[in-house]
Formats: sequence, structure tokens, C-alpha cells
Amino acid sequence: MIYRWSVPSLSPAIAEIRLAVRTALADLPAGSTVVVALSGGADSLALAAATAFEAPKLGLRAGSLTVDHGLQDGSDAVAARAARTAAALGLDALIVRAEVGEDGGPEAAARDARYRVLKDAAADAGASAVLLGHTLDDQAETVLLGLARGSGAASLQGMAPVREDDDGLRWVRPLLAVRRETTRACCTASDLEVWDDPHNADQRFARVRVRDRVLPVLEAELGPGIAEALARTAEQLREDAEAFDEMIHETIEDIVEHAEAGISVSVAALAANPAALRNRIIRLVVDSEFGVSLTRLQTLEVARLATDWAGQGPIDLPSCSAARVGGRIVFTAR
Amino acid sequence: MIYRWSVPSLSPAIAEIRLAVRTALADLPAGSTVVVALSGGADSLALAAATAFEAPKLGLRAGSLTVDHGLQDGSDAVAARAARTAAALGLDALIVRAEVGEDGGPEAAARDARYRVLKDAAADAGASAVLLGHTLDDQAETVLLGLARGSGAASLQGMAPVREDDDGLRWVRPLLAVRRETTRACCTASDLEVWDDPHNADQRFARVRVRDRVLPVLEAELGPGIAEALARTAEQLREDAEAFDEMIHETIEDIVEHAEAGISVSVAALAANPAALRNRIIRLVVDSEFGVSLTRLQTLEVARLATDWAGQGPIDLPSCSAARVGGRIVFTAR
Repeated sequence: MIYRWSVPSLSPAIAEIRLAVRTALADLPAGSTVVVALSGGADSLALAAATAFEAPKLGLRAGSLTVDHGLQDGSDAVAARAARTAAALGLDALIVRAEVGEDGGPEAAARDARYRVLKDAAADAGASAVLLGHTLDDQAETVLLGLARGSGAASLQGMAPVREDDDGLRWVRPLLAVRRETTRACCTASDLEVWDDPHNADQRFARVRVRDRVLPVLEAELGPGIAEALARTAEQLREDAEAFDEMIHETIEDIVEHAEAGISVSVAALAANPAALRNRIIRLVVDSEFGVSLTRLQTLEVARLATDWAGQGPIDLPSCSAARVGGRIVFTAR
Repeated sequence: MIYRWSVPSLSPAIAEIRLAVRTALADLPAGSTVVVALSGGADSLALAAATAFEAPKLGLRAGSLTVDHGLQDGSDAVAARAARTAAALGLDALIVRAEVGEDGGPEAAARDARYRVLKDAAADAGASAVLLGHTLDDQAETVLLGLARGSGAASLQGMAPVREDDDGLRWVRPLLAVRRETTRACCTASDLEVWDDPHNADQRFARVRVRDRVLPVLEAELGPGIAEALARTAEQLREDAEAFDEMIHETIEDIVEHAEAGISVSVAALAANPAALRNRIIRLVVDSEFGVSLTRLQTLEVARLATDWAGQGPIDLPSCSAARVGGRIVFTAR
């Protein structure tokens, strides 16, 4: 509260975002470098401003990375303006150019390309963390998009507030509990000029339709607070998923055996576990061995080899087949 | 398949609903009595017709119970017509009159009254199971209503396909994987006259708004199949919740101690569990001892007494307070 009185004119939006950033950066060791993924939109601009303010107080070096996808006319000018703003805020501002593939449509392709480029640039900068500007509203949209896929907790847990990748790089989202309108208010209060990505109004993207058409209807019909409720749901389902992951990783090595042409799992272990663990184990084993994601129906059919065994024959799955052999379910490449 | 060829003109809707009912009734012992909760709407009428057809083949006795809430003019005539139809189908048809309380609004009050009346009437009839006509569409609506509450898996798991209550009475929903339109097609194909409850068009009810305004927008913007995706999500989250329940009930007695003015839980046990279990244990302990449902924020604050202990003082909760005393979190009535 001392903080508040010493800067009496500070906008509540700026204060909220600075607090969120301070909290997210608190466990990084002093001397680390963090980089903000900066598009120039309100979310990442507010994040950059707060990071420029908070990082030095925590003994952290801070920079920004702006990815120029080259997908829109003038994208180089947009990137240059974002970098100039970041530099004026006191950040080491970099622009990197991304090559965009076409896998999975332009949205997914641009996202994958952005992550790869950010990862390489973060490594070049010696950064231990990349900060991403996703807000509570982005999280709510992600949950609704996952709901449409209908694959349970896995598709509803949204984005992680902190994720460490295989190379030890942390991807941190300090603003996951902050509303999007707060980032815009922060930019206005700080006289930061916001770039509005025309993609954000392109109704061909499912995410844009969720934002512009689905969430407003949910708010109108089910009452305000729906975005917060979706974000809260994501947080709890992420906890659930982490608990199941932990349990499975404690037991998986004891119940799985690798063979020449595949992998097998103990029937007794599958049958002794509750369905939630049994089905996850089956999906994990097939995914890790054959790189295939089973549907719920396929998973349940395999589970019945363990729990409702009546002599039924091998089950054809994508890339493999599953059969009960003695006390084991054996998955064999096809 | 023999079945199909022997009745070549059977409507697919009738066949689907009979199969769903046959599957749901398969584990009831021969000689049991089942009763269908029959409003006269398409869902329960299709369920009654399929039950009348399938129950005798499984050696089960079957009846119907129609609850007259007395809330609408002519409700007695509606109930009488439903009962006549059930009797014509070969069911033992009963009408029971419900007294409706006012707790929690007319929707919840009518539902509670209906369940109480059904339970009493089922007991009088010596029934071991009550069959409810909820469809996949009802399940999808329930998930969306739960999403608006935002309390994670607990609010998204929808309705159970089978639930046994404290008195051993089973509540069975054979049609949870059947679309609502299929029940109507079944009634049309069977020449059964459907009653359309005017409540189902009353936009004051959140469930009606979800059906008429929210789900159509989700279908239009996120593609068809959203109702099935929501139902699939409910099924998986129900599995998850059951697994956590099982784990907690295996350990709860070892980590909880009852005291004069409250209850306490071991800090070491809370800290050793993943957050998903820790938070559920805290909520369960407070709910079972004080009848209070903690919010997520309250739960997390209590959890920090175990995981982020820095000497913080007692936490005021509804009906109780929580404090760390030695190696335990002690909940005391206020």
C-alpha cells in the first residue's frame, strides 16, 4: 500500500499489470534475462511497459522480440514501430523475421513459426524466459475452443501460466488473470500507441468468432463473469491434469514392457486403476510408442480388453493393433 | 443383426432407443421393478415405450410415475393423458401429486419436489430403479450451465448415467447418449402424442436460454457436433472426479482428526499431495464438518497455510476459521 501512496496518480490498470508482472518474475534468479514477445498490440505492449519497469528492480535484464511474419503489407513497419516503442521504454528491442509454413492452416502455421523464431531468438539473447501477453480473455476463448473439441480436461485446461520446455526455456504468461480491457487502459494511461492486428477482426478464424459472437451471447444469456468462470475452470482442470500426469509417471515404468514390434501393458494394473487413469495410460502408451492420439471410443474399446474381457479379437487402431495376450495388452505396429 | 432383419420396418429412432434402454437395464436382476418418470414429453414418452417393450424380455416389471406439480392450469389432464398412454403401452401407470416448495426458484423447487415424490412412489411400488428421460441435449445444456459457474470438473461433469442413492435406489438415465430429436422421431414413428411443456419455451429459465440461444450460436460458430463434444467432456470429467473421490476416500481417515470444536488435517499430508487432491481434501473437510462450500480463492488461501507458510494468521471462512497449529491445519467453528 505504501507503493500506492507514493505514486498517487498511477492508473489502476498500470498498477494491476505491474503487480502481475512482478509476481510472475519473482522466482527468476537475479541476473537472468527475460524477453517479451511483442506484437505491438495492447496486450504485449502493456506487458512490455510493465516488464521494462519491474525487471530492473528485480535485478533482471529485459528485452523485447517482435516477429515479422511478412504475411500482411506493411508488417515490417508495424514491427519497426513496436521495436521503437520498446526501445523507448528501455528494453533491448529486436525484430526477427519468421518463415511461415502452411501446416494446419494459416493461424496454426503462424503460431508455430512464431514460437520457433522466439525460441531461437531467446537462445541467442541468452534469455531464460519468454514472456507472452495472453490475457484472461484469451484463456476463456481457448477453453471454449477446447470445448468444441470435446476431449475432456486435456482440451479445457487452456494455456499454462508457466511452462518449461525441453531445453529449459520458460514460457511465462503473467497476464492470464488480467482482462484484455485492462491492457488497453494501461496503454492509454501510458500514452502507448496500440496496433490493432486486422487478423483479430477476421471472422474466418474460430478464435475471432468465439471472441466476437460466442462470448457476448454467453455473457448475455448466462450472466456476466463468464470469462472469469472459464479461466477459473481452466486453472482447476490444469491442476487435475498435472495430478494425473504425476500419478502416471510414478507407475508407468512398472507396468509397461517394450518388445521388438511394440509395447505391452499389464492387464492387472490397468484393471486396478480407476477409469480416469486407465484411459490416460492407454492413450499415453499408444501416443508415445506410435505417435497416434486415440479417440475416446478407441480408448474405451482397448480398455474393455482389460476390464470386460470375453475373448474379443485384436482391435485395429491407427498405426497399430491392440490384443490381449495372457496377462498383458499388447500393442503391435501395423 | 437377426433382430433387425426380423423387424424390417422398425424405425431407426425406435431401434436406437430400445437398444439404449436394453443396455441400461442389462445389469438389473430379473424380477426387479423399474419405473419410468413420465412427464408426457417426447423424451420420457419414448423412454416409456422402449421400457414397456424391453423390460418383460429381461424379466423385469415396469411401471410409470407421472408427477402432477399442479403449477399449470390443466396439469391434471396432462398427467392423466400421459398415464393413459403408459397404460396402453402395458406399463403400470401411476399419477402422484407433488407439493412444490419455493427454495431456490421455481425450477429447482419443482425438481426437488419431483425427486422426493418419485423416490417415495418408487419405494411404494417396490422399485429398485427409476428411469429418467434426460438426453444428450440435456447433458450438453447442463455442462454449459456448469461452465457459467466456473467451479471446474465438479460443475462440468453433468448428470450421472447411473447413481445409487443412500437408500439403494438407482437413478438411471438410459438416453444420455441419445439426441432429443431421436426421442421425438421415436414418438412420431410410434404414433405417440407428445405433450410440449410450456416451461420449455419460457425464456426466464437459464436452461431454456441455453437451449434456444446459446447452443445454436455455438453450433453455428464452432461447427456442428458441439452437443456431442459437451456430453463427451462431461463423461470424461465424471471419470476424473470419480478417480479423485476414490483416492481421497482411501486416505482421508488417516490424515484427519476430529476435535471438540472442529477438525484438523495433517500439513505434511496436504503438502505431499498434488494441488488437485490437496484442494479437494480442504473443500471436503470443510463441507463435511461445517456444511459450507468454499470458493476457489478461499480454498487456495487455506492451502497456502500448508504450502507457503510464513506465519500468516488464522483465515476467516464462512462458519469456521482455519489456522496452522504445529503440524496441522485446524478448522474451528466460529
